Amino acid sequence: MSDHYSPVVEHLADPETAREEGRRKMDWALQHMPILSELRESFLADRPLEGEVIAMAMHVEAKTANLVELLADGGAEVAITGCNPLSTHDDVSAALNAHENITSYAVRGVDDEAYYDAMHAVVAHDPTITVDDGMDMVKLVHEEYPELIDSIVGGAEETTTGVHRLRAMDADGELRYPVFAVNDTPMKRLFDNVHGTGESSLATIAMTTNLSFAGKNVVVGGYGYCGKGVAKKAAGQNANVIVTEVEPRRALEAHMEGYDVLPMDEAAAEGDVFITTTGNRDVITKEHFEVMKDGVLLANAGHFDVEVNLEDLDELAVDRFEAREGVEAYEMPDGRELNVIAEGRLVNLAAPIALGHPVEVMDQSFGIQAVCVRELVENGDDYEAGVHDVPDDLDREVAEIKLAAEGVEYDSLSAEQREYMDSWEHGT
Amino acid sequence: MSDHYSPVVEHLADPETAREEGRRKMDWALQHMPILSELRESFLADRPLEGEVIAMAMHVEAKTANLVELLADGGAEVAITGCNPLSTHDDVSAALNAHENITSYAVRGVDDEAYYDAMHAVVAHDPTITVDDGMDMVKLVHEEYPELIDSIVGGAEETTTGVHRLRAMDADGELRYPVFAVNDTPMKRLFDNVHGTGESSLATIAMTTNLSFAGKNVVVGGYGYCGKGVAKKAAGQNANVIVTEVEPRRALEAHMEGYDVLPMDEAAAEGDVFITTTGNRDVITKEHFEVMKDGVLLANAGHFDVEVNLEDLDELAVDRFEAREGVEAYEMPDGRELNVIAEGRLVNLAAPIALGHPVEVMDQSFGIQAVCVRELVENGDDYEAGVHDVPDDLDREVAEIKLAAEGVEYDSLSAEQREYMDSWEHGT
Amino acid sequence: MSDHYSPVVEHLADPETAREEGRRKMDWALQHMPILSELRESFLADRPLEGEVIAMAMHVEAKTANLVELLADGGAEVAITGCNPLSTHDDVSAALNAHENITSYAVRGVDDEAYYDAMHAVVAHDPTITVDDGMDMVKLVHEEYPELIDSIVGGAEETTTGVHRLRAMDADGELRYPVFAVNDTPMKRLFDNVHGTGESSLATIAMTTNLSFAGKNVVVGGYGYCGKGVAKKAAGQNANVIVTEVEPRRALEAHMEGYDVLPMDEAAAEGDVFITTTGNRDVITKEHFEVMKDGVLLANAGHFDVEVNLEDLDELAVDRFEAREGVEAYEMPDGRELNVIAEGRLVNLAAPIALGHPVEVMDQSFGIQAVCVRELVENGDDYEAGVHDVPDDLDREVAEIKLAAEGVEYDSLSAEQREYMDSWEHGT
Amino acid sequence: MSDHYSPVVEHLADPETAREEGRRKMDWALQHMPILSELRESFLADRPLEGEVIAMAMHVEAKTANLVELLADGGAEVAITGCNPLSTHDDVSAALNAHENITSYAVRGVDDEAYYDAMHAVVAHDPTITVDDGMDMVKLVHEEYPELIDSIVGGAEETTTGVHRLRAMDADGELRYPVFAVNDTPMKRLFDNVHGTGESSLATIAMTTNLSFAGKNVVVGGYGYCGKGVAKKAAGQNANVIVTEVEPRRALEAHMEGYDVLPMDEAAAEGDVFITTTGNRDVITKEHFEVMKDGVLLANAGHFDVEVNLEDLDELAVDRFEAREGVEAYEMPDGRELNVIAEGRLVNLAAPIALGHPVEVMDQSFGIQAVCVRELVENGDDYEAGVHDVPDDLDREVAEIKLAAEGVEYDSLSAEQREYMDSWEHGT
Repeated sequence: MSDHYSPVVEHLADPETAREEGRRKMDWALQHMPILSELRESFLADRPLEGEVIAMAMHVEAKTANLVELLADGGAEVAITGCNPLSTHDDVSAALNAHENITSYAVRGVDDEAYYDAMHAVVAHDPTITVDDGMDMVKLVHEEYPELIDSIVGGAEETTTGVHRLRAMDADGELRYPVFAVNDTPMKRLFDNVHGTGESSLATIAMTTNLSFAGKNVVVGGYGYCGKGVAKKAAGQNANVIVTEVEPRRALEAHMEGYDVLPMDEAAAEGDVFITTTGNRDVITKEHFEVMKDGVLLANAGHFDVEVNLEDLDELAVDRFEAREGVEAYEMPDGRELNVIAEGRLVNLAAPIALGHPVEVMDQSFGIQAVCVRELVENGDDYEAGVHDVPDDLDREVAEIKLAAEGVEYDSLSAEQREYMDSWEHGT
Repeated sequence: MSDHYSPVVEHLADPETAREEGRRKMDWALQHMPILSELRESFLADRPLEGEVIAMAMHVEAKTANLVELLADGGAEVAITGCNPLSTHDDVSAALNAHENITSYAVRGVDDEAYYDAMHAVVAHDPTITVDDGMDMVKLVHEEYPELIDSIVGGAEETTTGVHRLRAMDADGELRYPVFAVNDTPMKRLFDNVHGTGESSLATIAMTTNLSFAGKNVVVGGYGYCGKGVAKKAAGQNANVIVTEVEPRRALEAHMEGYDVLPMDEAAAEGDVFITTTGNRDVITKEHFEVMKDGVLLANAGHFDVEVNLEDLDELAVDRFEAREGVEAYEMPDGRELNVIAEGRLVNLAAPIALGHPVEVMDQSFGIQAVCVRELVENGDDYEAGVHDVPDDLDREVAEIKLAAEGVEYDSLSAEQREYMDSWEHGT
Repeated sequence: MSDHYSPVVEHLADPETAREEGRRKMDWALQHMPILSELRESFLADRPLEGEVIAMAMHVEAKTANLVELLADGGAEVAITGCNPLSTHDDVSAALNAHENITSYAVRGVDDEAYYDAMHAVVAHDPTITVDDGMDMVKLVHEEYPELIDSIVGGAEETTTGVHRLRAMDADGELRYPVFAVNDTPMKRLFDNVHGTGESSLATIAMTTNLSFAGKNVVVGGYGYCGKGVAKKAAGQNANVIVTEVEPRRALEAHMEGYDVLPMDEAAAEGDVFITTTGNRDVITKEHFEVMKDGVLLANAGHFDVEVNLEDLDELAVDRFEAREGVEAYEMPDGRELNVIAEGRLVNLAAPIALGHPVEVMDQSFGIQAVCVRELVENGDDYEAGVHDVPDDLDREVAEIKLAAEGVEYDSLSAEQREYMDSWEHGT
Repeated sequence: MSDHYSPVVEHLADPETAREEGRRKMDWALQHMPILSELRESFLADRPLEGEVIAMAMHVEAKTANLVELLADGGAEVAITGCNPLSTHDDVSAALNAHENITSYAVRGVDDEAYYDAMHAVVAHDPTITVDDGMDMVKLVHEEYPELIDSIVGGAEETTTGVHRLRAMDADGELRYPVFAVNDTPMKRLFDNVHGTGESSLATIAMTTNLSFAGKNVVVGGYGYCGKGVAKKAAGQNANVIVTEVEPRRALEAHMEGYDVLPMDEAAAEGDVFITTTGNRDVITKEHFEVMKDGVLLANAGHFDVEVNLEDLDELAVDRFEAREGVEAYEMPDGRELNVIAEGRLVNLAAPIALGHPVEVMDQSFGIQAVCVRELVENGDDYEAGVHDVPDDLDREVAEIKLAAEGVEYDSLSAEQREYMDSWEHGT
């Protein structure tokens, strides 16, 4: 048992019980994380991260905790805090602190000051690597601790939104160390965004509201990977899916898939359930609230709570009350009630019953994180400052581990086939 | 506020707060129950059930409570208790007791003695009508209160299993009043069983385990209406569905749908998740547990907790522990852990986070219940003792109410079309 | 080689080559008809139809021909003609005539007089059993050959429409021998109607037009079994499905499936492709043509060519021309062109490239026909005059044969399970 | 009417009737090609291709013909021949020759010598631009007419296979002018490959065989865009899809979609239908044929006829015969018959009833071709020799035209939203 400083332990009435509970949650997750399980064996054997200090700002819950522990088992000292004040599980935070190489500063529900204090405390460990879910750690280091940058070999970023903002920063010439865009790998996009966000968002909404999707008009704001997942899984529950988009090729793609594509101005009056996935702000605003049906559900599956404009909604409302745990009803002057789930925050993380992404998809995503961190240690000098795609062979390595763990066999190219693919001399 | 006896009120520390909470739950449900809302208006105006006494044994939660209140608003005196010791919401039970025509005896988690006492207390109201979810009330009256039968105009039964047992009783010549087989209506089977059981079982499993269905082998035991729903919704979440059946036409139907059809002896080794829906016992037994993969999930979506044979499982296990809230892990001698969800009871009702069927499908099902009760009062003499299908026009009436409430318009036959359908003289 | 009268042989330039070609078509079909293959072995061995005369009016093509030959191999004398002047394959008709127990009167494209002459010629064989696809043979016998009725043991009817008309006839007390409603079996409805009509109608339309369904609004007229099949398969090709219905429960079922449900008055302006499946007349009429988009496709998958009102369309049109083989374009005064496929006749039979239902589904359907005919011979006296459902054990027998042929294994009930299902004493 | 040399006119008995028939086919296609229709208006007005000579080797049928005519209407002189000896429609070839700016050398079914003569005849026009479907024209110019390269501004390539080979050529430093990889655009891959190949391959197989996909094991070789389309559409017809792959991420993607993933060695014994889409050779070979079921169907949806190894099959076979038009049966020593569709050539082009890709998807693909050719004329100097992705704005332009033509409206970013997306300063 480590004796390092541990704010969550200070905070908890019965830290020992919390640790056990946190550990039980981590064990459940690990049972369904074959990739991390496999990597742990090699990390424990090879200690590839020996001597590194990793600063993390991620959702502190059971699945992430297994990544944190894997990195620590690989030899690194890890300091972590949450990337969202409401997503921390204190028991998991406590369980992490029990590992001698890990300090978790995350405490659920802290105020802004404590939230940022924790960030600073993490950076005080003098990291050589940053791992982010929303680029908060990269931003803090660049803005307030530029002196650390020289000793940082690189970083890894988990989310679409974070990568988007990192690319903007990079385009401005202000990103001063290499960061792997974990979000942009085929593995991450297809499995985490499509399957993970899709399934968990819908299950969270269903279990928060006790409502069904069959026969409902489900308006999906945005048809990126998350939007595709939400749309596909909602259609798989027999919803009638309506997509809104701003990019014509994505709009066309949704149209060709058989979904209705409408501007939000029209979709607003049709929808029974609205789920935003754009990564942008003001997807649903005042003029939309004004035409919505009584009893609609409003939820956000994008990173920040700006997609559904709650200020507009609050301004329109004559009353608001908790209609159900996790559901705030806004009563309109004409008596309609619009129901906002999880305060418009990322629904599969912020709803009271939310559990985040499914374990298996985080296993894939975190498997890539782990091999990216290993790559930074082993070959960090090969990468210039800026956003980098995850090297193809790392992404492929993780897929191979997963398939082997699931017992899925597949073919390999014969020498003749490889030659055929490489040649261009062959005629018709 | 009524002053009638109310066991749940005795039982609760703060009955007033509970009543408010129960009422809030009922209001949420009613917002999404357009059929009951519509019927309530006519029931309040016409009081069609005036003078009747209705004995109910159903799951006492928010949705059912709106049916109970509708029947009371129609003029009946209603006495109710739970049909499952674990499905009662005490706050809803308390809220029901606030209605002057309603007495609820349901209290969550009571022991067997208290459970059956509550049944007897309900019957002590001298019912003229019974409404069941599993035929417990019909059974009790027939076995222990035969003297009441003469004054009972009839009953209504909600479930597949209950109807099945009533038909057996009827075949034995022992059913002594008419009972509507609400379960067997097209409305009930397609919407409640397929959509309701399907969606809520999967969402409950997902939110109890934090696992995903994508790429999983989901073994569905039984391909009746519930099984079809579970299979369809699981495939809609990108599961690889395996069906087991004993009836060749259903097996063939599943095969033609594109699912794998296997005997359970073979499916046992393939499955990642098992969901039983047969209404029968011993669907999964010792020889199946012996070949299952490590970490499988076992859940039941059929009425009783006999589908997964937990005695067999317990006998095999060297250890068992709560792996997660709502999940009991059974450790096999070879180290495999088999995870049983909600103790093998009806998963969408008995899991700790379970909410039962979605509100909208219960609205349809309870709408039929309500018009069936009305029919018994108005035309009960037309029905002989025995199980009766719900008259077609009642079922149709409820569909019409629902479509109108959803704003769905449809066509009607012209005189010429009606004539065409009726004629057989028309040649090629 | 038989020397009986054979109109198609008279008609053909090279009957021998035609016979070979017809036989090759029959062989291809038989390779994919495991049920008929299996039954043929037992029919040849047992000769259960010895001494019977079977009068048939069915589509004379390769699949039906294998049923005809099976009945003949079972010992019956079979006389057959077409049930649609355009669906006969002359080469198959010729190949059938080569069997000593079979006389086929079917010739493609004959005029009305020759068509009805062929019907009379079939009846002249003094049938003891009739097998129909549209009840033409039953009708002819009742109207013009009542003297034959006493020696007829019964009949079998293939189609929804035929059964509908037989039931009307039965209700009028005019059906004078027993007829099996083959169409109404679960096997027939689910496999033939849903899968057969669904897949073959869409493939025929695709290959007649070279158009795609992805992103198209496909309006399905009617949501019976055929409509469900067309809707499901169209959605499976990424069409946006719109359903029209006159029955509220079916309308609700389509709505809950996630389809748009609209009156045809509104659907008419939305659709890109219209497929009628109602079995009724005037599903699409003048007011609908007036609001349709330029370039729409109109097709019928119901039995008769009355669903799309072509008289109305012709009246509106300023010009019409063959836009493509199998497609007649009707030009509206405003320049829009509405494209009618296969003259509004049953599209999967009447289009120039049409092949009828897929072989495998006809195998199931004809398997039931064959065991129904066997049942009439063996137990015909048990059935009163009127329409009869196919006895459950026959339907089940065919499913068992099919599953065995496909190598699909399934479970059977244990004695304990059977007892459990039969008992009603079991408590909660 | 032009009087230029026209081999197909020489070849045809009645060229005038052929021209009319070809024109009718082109008109049908154009009615469903809104993108080309829209572009034609601007091309006729602006004549952007004036003075260019375009050499094309593509499938000469109605859809392509509308692209050819569009390019000619844009001012170019176009010379074309087929890229496959069997895909030419002589009537369309004749109709094209009627345009004064077009010379078509394509004649169906010519021998190798005539086929290559036609290629040379096209190059003899001294092209400034090449447009290929399989890089034959690029190859011919580079190998035999290097003197033309200096005056060629660039090319465009339609297919996956062609692009693959061009990239190999480029990597070898041997590609001497810029070529747009039309195949690699999102528009082309998603719509043409997924929807086009998927729907048309399955419809062609269904209508060639009269068989159904419901309940069949459909083995899809390769899970690239074409494979995804075939798998998705086959599942949408209720097939049980089995995927084979050599790339672990694609294999995992298919697995997570819910499909079975197997090595071909195992899939071979399971499949009822095999469809290869890999672009590689020897996907199905001797050891696979040896274990296949009796009656299986073998088809290829990849570019060349090397995916199913017919030499191996022929070697194993004791007999072969035409089982049905477009289907060659190979009889194995043990009596099994394996059915090869369309000689293992690209099934949706080479089967006797094949129509190629659906009109609408070719409209999208050819729309990109047209704007790429326009781009080469307008900005060809901006592109170095080598393979180039289609510039994003061209791809987007075509999507916008399509959405406008379909009447699909979508949203646009507000200034605030654009700013939000561009900024990285925003905190949590």
